Amino acid sequence: MDYQAYFQKNRDVHLQELGELIRIPSISTSSEHKGDVLNAAKWVADSLRRAGMENVEVYPTEGHPVVYGEHLHAPGKPTVLVYGHYDVQPVDPVELWDTPPFEPTIRDGKLYARGATDDKGQMFMHVKAVEAILSQEKELPVNIKFCIEGEEEITSPNLPSFLEANQDKLAADVVLISDTQLLEPGKPAICVGLRGLCSLEVTVRTANTDLHSGTFGGGVPNALHALVALLSSLHDDQGRVAVEGFYKGVPELTADLRKEFDKLQFNEEKLRADLGLDTLFGEEGYSFIERTGVRPTLELNGVYGGFQGEGTKTVIPKEAHAKITCRLVGDQDPQDILDKIEAHLNSRVQPGAKLDVRQTERARAFTIDPSNPLLQKAADAYGRVYGTRALFTNDGGSIPIVATLSRVLSAPVVMMGFGLPDENLHAPNEHFNLENFDKGLLTIVEYLKSL
Amino acid sequence: MDYQAYFQKNRDVHLQELGELIRIPSISTSSEHKGDVLNAAKWVADSLRRAGMENVEVYPTEGHPVVYGEHLHAPGKPTVLVYGHYDVQPVDPVELWDTPPFEPTIRDGKLYARGATDDKGQMFMHVKAVEAILSQEKELPVNIKFCIEGEEEITSPNLPSFLEANQDKLAADVVLISDTQLLEPGKPAICVGLRGLCSLEVTVRTANTDLHSGTFGGGVPNALHALVALLSSLHDDQGRVAVEGFYKGVPELTADLRKEFDKLQFNEEKLRADLGLDTLFGEEGYSFIERTGVRPTLELNGVYGGFQGEGTKTVIPKEAHAKITCRLVGDQDPQDILDKIEAHLNSRVQPGAKLDVRQTERARAFTIDPSNPLLQKAADAYGRVYGTRALFTNDGGSIPIVATLSRVLSAPVVMMGFGLPDENLHAPNEHFNLENFDKGLLTIVEYLKSL
Repeated sequence: MDYQAYFQKNRDVHLQELGELIRIPSISTSSEHKGDVLNAAKWVADSLRRAGMENVEVYPTEGHPVVYGEHLHAPGKPTVLVYGHYDVQPVDPVELWDTPPFEPTIRDGKLYARGATDDKGQMFMHVKAVEAILSQEKELPVNIKFCIEGEEEITSPNLPSFLEANQDKLAADVVLISDTQLLEPGKPAICVGLRGLCSLEVTVRTANTDLHSGTFGGGVPNALHALVALLSSLHDDQGRVAVEGFYKGVPELTADLRKEFDKLQFNEEKLRADLGLDTLFGEEGYSFIERTGVRPTLELNGVYGGFQGEGTKTVIPKEAHAKITCRLVGDQDPQDILDKIEAHLNSRVQPGAKLDVRQTERARAFTIDPSNPLLQKAADAYGRVYGTRALFTNDGGSIPIVATLSRVLSAPVVMMGFGLPDENLHAPNEHFNLENFDKGLLTIVEYLKSL
Repeated sequence: MDYQAYFQKNRDVHLQELGELIRIPSISTSSEHKGDVLNAAKWVADSLRRAGMENVEVYPTEGHPVVYGEHLHAPGKPTVLVYGHYDVQPVDPVELWDTPPFEPTIRDGKLYARGATDDKGQMFMHVKAVEAILSQEKELPVNIKFCIEGEEEITSPNLPSFLEANQDKLAADVVLISDTQLLEPGKPAICVGLRGLCSLEVTVRTANTDLHSGTFGGGVPNALHALVALLSSLHDDQGRVAVEGFYKGVPELTADLRKEFDKLQFNEEKLRADLGLDTLFGEEGYSFIERTGVRPTLELNGVYGGFQGEGTKTVIPKEAHAKITCRLVGDQDPQDILDKIEAHLNSRVQPGAKLDVRQTERARAFTIDPSNPLLQKAADAYGRVYGTRALFTNDGGSIPIVATLSRVLSAPVVMMGFGLPDENLHAPNEHFNLENFDKGLLTIVEYLKSL
């Protein structure tokens, strides 16, 4: 079978279909988009049916639904569960997008849109790969199940109970996920480690109203002063997290692992230049790949309070806000970390200010042993398509459900990513390099046929 | 003449007229309101004409116009120049207003609206006081000139050159301003000191795009981290400004002045309770009245960067912003202070971050000797209406043009305020207690007749 010719011939139709899904603004964190998220689920279900999947259903949950579909006609062959997600991140600041985030646009061989790579584009490739094999060979080389959720970007609050409740239906020999990245163009990678995540929202309140800085300035607490003092206490000057006990459970970086990282030959200078930075910045004594792969971090994702308009407003704001997330590694316990940060902040509140901390998300880190044959075969499949065997990498991101999938289904997880690090995930002008769309389809076909 | 009866009879008409002016959203800092600011100027001119003023004109400037009008038919009597402003502060956060900011609403004897007290309401009282005397006595006891500007809330960038260019036209024996406050209900005050002001806008930039905290977190600079570190360095733990040389030119607080402050018998406990605070907060060793009256201050008025929406967004923002104003006293030089803050920030920028500082406004502090007979007569006028002679106070606010008016016109400035400290100047639900509208009209009439 010449799958390259097949995918080439159907490319426009495939991209047009993907465009339909992308046009649905399925932002899972925003309650006003609840209907859109549901519509995206229905669209995925229809697309699975069109691909030849059976028993396709949209399963409601307490939050956004899970889409399931299967094709179980390969007795004696392994069962592959494809996991992906059809929800996307918010689009702010929307004014920084060159083209509207939900209007898919191809420029220079790249598809620009929210969700183009994370994860609508990558998830959709599995649907099309299976459809291709079925259309060309009338049967699949494996049994296949799809489990596509709508809450990944809000750390999958309802999927664990769905997995527990449907353990038999979802049972598989391997879980296959495309929601990670190549190292750089032409250098494929299989992710064998993901950081965990925890998040919190911090509000500082002072007076019961905004106050005039002439009448009150210097004599009353200012919520912004109290907040920036708290936030700046979270790191030391070298970018190390200054919360007591934060690094408990973080594994030492062994000489062996350090050698593995060196093999990746990551080009820090190129990254620095690409990002327009004078210098990269992070914890002393670690390379970029180490800092983002196997070291934990605490990031301010948003801070706001007081006047943001044009000109000057001499106001003392009555409240100020911060959104914080941590990436976790090794045995760091998300709940423990959240409690330590909360205690750290509580012990440093300025006189006259009141602190309100809301703990929101918790997910542990995940790792898998790359010597597993199911991972080795995946590396080989990349090799046949890209001409370079995939390396095994630790991704700094978090797919909180991965550890749960592995545990509940007692199956290894193969993270076969086709994104690139500079594709603006979660930022304006997210895009997907279509070279990896084309090669990715072939790699998935190769992998399924090799099992 | 029974002016009390006159004002009582005309009260509804006066408040209705004031409502017309308040409905014009003359926010001088916002370019989109330029037309509204002009309309407010025209409205003030019409109202001066109706009051019997002559040679009324709306004088264009490089920014918003100045309204002038005069009545010069009292030979041998002093000439009073009434200064006021028809522009107002922005209204954000607009969702915290109980009634729309430009829809004047009377509740519990208080007029709620942006500009109700600062300064449309207070400025308007002078127009009505003069109109009252003319209508009742067919002549004024003094020569009077009105100079009402539209840029007070943006520190009067164009009025100084207007004053210089029209020195003869504006020449006066005393400048009369109502844009300050009583000490508390029933306790009138004449302001003999105003703090100066300087302002700046700070932007920190890092990468050329927002970045995903999974892929990049821990390995790149975060604009918010760099910003909160800078901002928190501006104060020490006791609320004292930590910029080197900031307190140069700040006069020592003498035992005599401290005794004057004690006379005011300011109720800190009541203020604390009214504001819903656990404790007031400010520079060690000073009372609230001292901190806000004769001590300088540096306030964060707005801070923002990154994600502000619902839920979580794991983004590393590429830029972050702060708006800062200082209140200055004594001989502090606004330009010198701005330069010192900029140098302080520049010396502390985190690796990988770029700092952009924009200096915006500069105004020196102002003081006048309360023994001046023109001020003593004003205190007496209050005494006849309120039953309590006015005390002389230092107001923490800034009316940057006051020092300029005094210098260019070589005339003492009488700041006869009728606001109250809790009337939410520059904040949501600004209001004006109409008891002081009624008494203020009488006080102005008493004062003009006493000259």
